[in-house]
Amino acid sequence: MPRARKPKKPNHLKHVLAAFEAGDVAQVHAILADLHPADIANVLEGLPPEPRTTVWAQVDNQHRGEVLLELPEAVRTDLVQQMDDKALVASARALDIDEIADLIPDLSDEVIAEILFDLDKQDRQRLDAVLSYPEDTAGGLMNVDAITVRENITVEVVLRYLRRRGELPEHTNRLFVVDRADRLVGELKVANLLTADLQARVSQIMERGDLVKFSALTPDKDVALAFEDYNLISAPVVDENNRLLGRITVDDVVDVIREQADRQVLAPAGLSEEEDIFAPVARSSRRRGVWLGVNLVTAVIASWVIGLFEQTIQQVVALAVLMPIVASMGGNAGTQTLTLVVRGLAVGTISESNARRLLSRELMIGAVNGLIWALVVAAVAVWWYGNIMIGVLIAAAMVINLGFAALSGVAIPFAVRRFGVDPALASGVILTTVTDVIGFFAFLGLATLFLI
Amino acid sequence: MPRARKPKKPNHLKHVLAAFEAGDVAQVHAILADLHPADIANVLEGLPPEPRTTVWAQVDNQHRGEVLLELPEAVRTDLVQQMDDKALVASARALDIDEIADLIPDLSDEVIAEILFDLDKQDRQRLDAVLSYPEDTAGGLMNVDAITVRENITVEVVLRYLRRRGELPEHTNRLFVVDRADRLVGELKVANLLTADLQARVSQIMERGDLVKFSALTPDKDVALAFEDYNLISAPVVDENNRLLGRITVDDVVDVIREQADRQVLAPAGLSEEEDIFAPVARSSRRRGVWLGVNLVTAVIASWVIGLFEQTIQQVVALAVLMPIVASMGGNAGTQTLTLVVRGLAVGTISESNARRLLSRELMIGAVNGLIWALVVAAVAVWWYGNIMIGVLIAAAMVINLGFAALSGVAIPFAVRRFGVDPALASGVILTTVTDVIGFFAFLGLATLFLI
Repeated sequence: MPRARKPKKPNHLKHVLAAFEAGDVAQVHAILADLHPADIANVLEGLPPEPRTTVWAQVDNQHRGEVLLELPEAVRTDLVQQMDDKALVASARALDIDEIADLIPDLSDEVIAEILFDLDKQDRQRLDAVLSYPEDTAGGLMNVDAITVRENITVEVVLRYLRRRGELPEHTNRLFVVDRADRLVGELKVANLLTADLQARVSQIMERGDLVKFSALTPDKDVALAFEDYNLISAPVVDENNRLLGRITVDDVVDVIREQADRQVLAPAGLSEEEDIFAPVARSSRRRGVWLGVNLVTAVIASWVIGLFEQTIQQVVALAVLMPIVASMGGNAGTQTLTLVVRGLAVGTISESNARRLLSRELMIGAVNGLIWALVVAAVAVWWYGNIMIGVLIAAAMVINLGFAALSGVAIPFAVRRFGVDPALASGVILTTVTDVIGFFAFLGLATLFLI
Repeated sequence: MPRARKPKKPNHLKHVLAAFEAGDVAQVHAILADLHPADIANVLEGLPPEPRTTVWAQVDNQHRGEVLLELPEAVRTDLVQQMDDKALVASARALDIDEIADLIPDLSDEVIAEILFDLDKQDRQRLDAVLSYPEDTAGGLMNVDAITVRENITVEVVLRYLRRRGELPEHTNRLFVVDRADRLVGELKVANLLTADLQARVSQIMERGDLVKFSALTPDKDVALAFEDYNLISAPVVDENNRLLGRITVDDVVDVIREQADRQVLAPAGLSEEEDIFAPVARSSRRRGVWLGVNLVTAVIASWVIGLFEQTIQQVVALAVLMPIVASMGGNAGTQTLTLVVRGLAVGTISESNARRLLSRELMIGAVNGLIWALVVAAVAVWWYGNIMIGVLIAAAMVINLGFAALSGVAIPFAVRRFGVDPALASGVILTTVTDVIGFFAFLGLATLFLI
């Protein structure tokens, strides 16, 4: 059971680092002993490799399991490798079944066997159930600690049962009413238990229609949207025959929402939310290098377009000076549309149903801003070079590019999604390639036609 | 009370649009009558202005308040303007006090007066309490429906009190134990109430040490991090004398997390999470135009740097063709570092304590990738132009630019934050300006020195 802490955060990282640098391991241990596992995880995530190893050794075994679960995958894997089998089995002992399931992928077969040996038969079956679903589904997210009751008993009997049972699983705000075959027939709010007539039957006070329930393979992002929209604390997971498999609780959903948010921010830069900010330089360089390689390809394509107009540039060098403005403005305008669409697709407010209307609106905005900023850029160009024709050409190129930018900003995310790729990951690179190519081509092409 | 719905979402937007286009208003009404307010809000958000007005007119008054609260600010304001005073007062009637507080900024003085007139004295005081704190603080987020008990009574008395009181406020997973002066002395889990001995006193089973509690002015993002880290469902808000002011529930915190996530994604493109995707073209153009203006300034600065080397370019046009590659690779590498740092600052894993270590690590990654991709780019350049010197120069410029990119990626977010600006908003623009300027300056400058 995590201990509650005060919300105004002191800078734990700073204190731990100071103690580490002073060589005061006892002090490190003392600081950590007072912290919630989530806070310990935050400290570890912010530590470079050497202090991290030392600090990890000072975390008590009964907290280590929970700390590991709070860490990004890369950090977790590293720390697991630093632990011997006995310590790993001991850490797992303090965890719930669904938490053990999350840890399993990082463990060796020996450790897994040892942990299974530790569990009673029912828990072993439960662990099997959770492990049989992918991590990013309702089944992978669920816990198997749901309390079930029958519909024909009275409130008094339920209360007596709970009292005898002892401590309730965390975040139990509703019990699940099932029939003899474990099929879900209703839900009983704990709050109702407290206020209902003791002689009332469960069937009289339970909710039965329109229950929010998930099939085991529902994607976790749909689970998150439902929890968010319907303000849920817990919800049941059922199989295809409506048999209760487990329940999902809001604390795990909050983690899903945060992960999704991190992915939306990190993916466009080719980064992963499961990476370690202090990963070995070689590993990070390789991962990021791949992304730079992709970007190099797009940059070379843009350069190749410029190369087509070398002779034009040679005659009017001003073009080389001004051309990045056209590309950059197109890229920025397009990114605005793109960001809007990627986000709308993620939260569900944009879909095929309203895409065409959205496109015509974005094209209008592109036209308005294209015209206005084309005039400004033209003025700058004319003032700079005293050549009206250059001003006219750059203005025309800008309008063309901002039009294509709006079109691409709407079309690319839909296209990327159709190929089964996350729009947040790939859309940005494709868009800037398009706006660079169109920008350079329009400006230099028009110049070749009308200026030379 | 929101009705629960099935999670597998049918495409409500499509159905509503189809009914609207068929002119079948009765069908629109029938679809909406079946939907949860959050789903109605999603449909409205995805609708263009004309259908939106029609559809809004078909939403029942007792749901309208909740629907309004689920909408982005811009959409909410528009819809409020379409309602007469009577309808607004009626919509507010179905809301909790904290929800009414969220709606107040959109209402006219007459409507507010009418709503206040509707409330009893206690609720009016409660509304005042919530309104006295900024929206983005714990005080603005709290509700005033906390159930309080005294520590010297028995579990049996508490249970009897609750049973007489009737329905509990939503998401009541704990009661707050206060003394005579309303000071918070402990928390009593509802789950404990169900399992504890009936004769036990509250003081024996309540939690008293290390409670997670918020002062009214705690920023909402800190509240969100605490809920996330400590897996909370509800938590108390207290004043400076530890007197209970209200409680925050996880459903509101989930909204805060989603809003923050949206802001992190939208802010770097100069967009707001409170905007309407179908806002009038003039309004959107103006808002986005401002952002394009900022970007134009940075693009002109980059062009000005290129302009310094016009004569060099005139002699070696290849430089104009290749220079965007140097700028683009610097921009991409820098954006990776920047994205990592902005996100780390937001979630608290990066701070002044580990900034220097992070910087040296990012510089190393920048050096490794700079060298590797410099060689690749050099090879492309040599193959393209058959000129070894151009290859050497572009490689050197790349190494320089990726070094500065790493430095800027770490330094800029810290600097921006020190000026009190959200790093997510301004860092990206500044970074690409730096990498463009350094990239062009290094490449064209070196060429001027060694090639001419």
